[in-house]
Amino acid sequence: MSYAKQLLDTYPRDFNLDADLLAGAIDALSDCAQACIADADLSEQNIAEMVKCIRLCLDCADVCAATLGVVSRQTEYDANVTRPLLEACVATCKGCGDECERHAQMHEHCRVCAEACRRCEQACNELLAAME
Amino acid sequence: MSYAKQLLDTYPRDFNLDADLLAGAIDALSDCAQACIADADLSEQNIAEMVKCIRLCLDCADVCAATLGVVSRQTEYDANVTRPLLEACVATCKGCGDECERHAQMHEHCRVCAEACRRCEQACNELLAAME
Amino acid sequence: MSYAKQLLDTYPRDFNLDADLLAGAIDALSDCAQACIADADLSEQNIAEMVKCIRLCLDCADVCAATLGVVSRQTEYDANVTRPLLEACVATCKGCGDECERHAQMHEHCRVCAEACRRCEQACNELLAAME
Amino acid sequence: MSYAKQLLDTYPRDFNLDADLLAGAIDALSDCAQACIADADLSEQNIAEMVKCIRLCLDCADVCAATLGVVSRQTEYDANVTRPLLEACVATCKGCGDECERHAQMHEHCRVCAEACRRCEQACNELLAAME
Repeated sequence: MSYAKQLLDTYPRDFNLDADLLAGAIDALSDCAQACIADADLSEQNIAEMVKCIRLCLDCADVCAATLGVVSRQTEYDANVTRPLLEACVATCKGCGDECERHAQMHEHCRVCAEACRRCEQACNELLAAME
Repeated sequence: MSYAKQLLDTYPRDFNLDADLLAGAIDALSDCAQACIADADLSEQNIAEMVKCIRLCLDCADVCAATLGVVSRQTEYDANVTRPLLEACVATCKGCGDECERHAQMHEHCRVCAEACRRCEQACNELLAAME
Repeated sequence: MSYAKQLLDTYPRDFNLDADLLAGAIDALSDCAQACIADADLSEQNIAEMVKCIRLCLDCADVCAATLGVVSRQTEYDANVTRPLLEACVATCKGCGDECERHAQMHEHCRVCAEACRRCEQACNELLAAME
Repeated sequence: MSYAKQLLDTYPRDFNLDADLLAGAIDALSDCAQACIADADLSEQNIAEMVKCIRLCLDCADVCAATLGVVSRQTEYDANVTRPLLEACVATCKGCGDECERHAQMHEHCRVCAEACRRCEQACNELLAAME
């Protein structure tokens, strides 16, 4: 069982969201930030063609890390912050995932990164839907 | 002149936003993240009453840091990411600023932190307005 | 297989460290940052006794996140940065793990967090040893 | 007066370091992280020659941000963490500053970034010396 699920199962307060859904999002955010921060693109020969991908990965890593922090802390929940943050996260995962997918045939690490982005995009969308 | 303004003045590409407005937002985001990360609340005697403030400061620091990264990098601009991220930042600065202001009479550092949040909230709102 | 291992297996350049060892450290750093950032202590009734633990968790999350970034990027490796950073990471994981363990009987989430810290401390120590 | 100095002047506990020295380091760390995160190199035409600089800037931004967090929080001070972390920060600022300086004639933004790195390297060294 992931640390996120273990921590939520032992959380000292109630919270409104489903623990499995939330733990899934936390794990997906952590995986996506980790994949995007590695920035394997920087080691490619065709670096000039990878500039957009590098930039999108950096943005995606930053937004995922912030979203991870905010959704992990359940003490004070504010939909006015969490909702647009999750929307920004969905958009950055989609943009980064689309760009990575364009190079997935050429660069195997882009395929891995695209997969992490897709899973995170979906997990954030499911969390948003559960907040309705 | 701040580093943000110097860097934007020497930026190798054109970008659509006004450099003074953008540099102002970058400086305000950096100041607000710095104030919120210090977490002086943790050293207060009445810590039990400060829990909400601590949590809101942590969220505010995370969102400001991510927004700082995204708006600082001008290579690829995506309104679908930047707009909701700035909206999340405005909301977290407002929430944190309101809570800090409640303790501003009692704790001088909360007054300082509230001021940093207010300035950041305003700078992000101005950037959002310029993006219309 | 974790994303870290998949990414290292598809990395476009050679690097000097053993891929399994490095992937293990990356996963441990990511798990530890995630556990420490959740800050479940903030939701405890006996918050006044948890201040030291909260502070140590925040430091641990910050140092683990930075170490994660630096060891994930293999393009330019500088032992003068990586070595003291890993030493700082070992020390913060040890300090945070010790403090969490003191509350492990009382707070189940501290037991989980302590475990993440211990694993990360060990993984960073193994990486340091491999760098000799 | 910077927010760092204002916050330290209103800090609810005593701490062992000189407030001016510490505030100077906090401001220098914040400026350096901000300069390095902008990653103006990504927008340069000669991107293939800038790969090392981009990587070093990313590392520098990560280490400065973590050091900023740790030295800003004065509730629990642990020399076993702070000292190697400041040493890692000195090394990353030196490495990044040296590389940026190599391009300072060609790229004005590298000159600005080198200046931020130099000031941060010096401020961290002064803090280390004060901790003896």
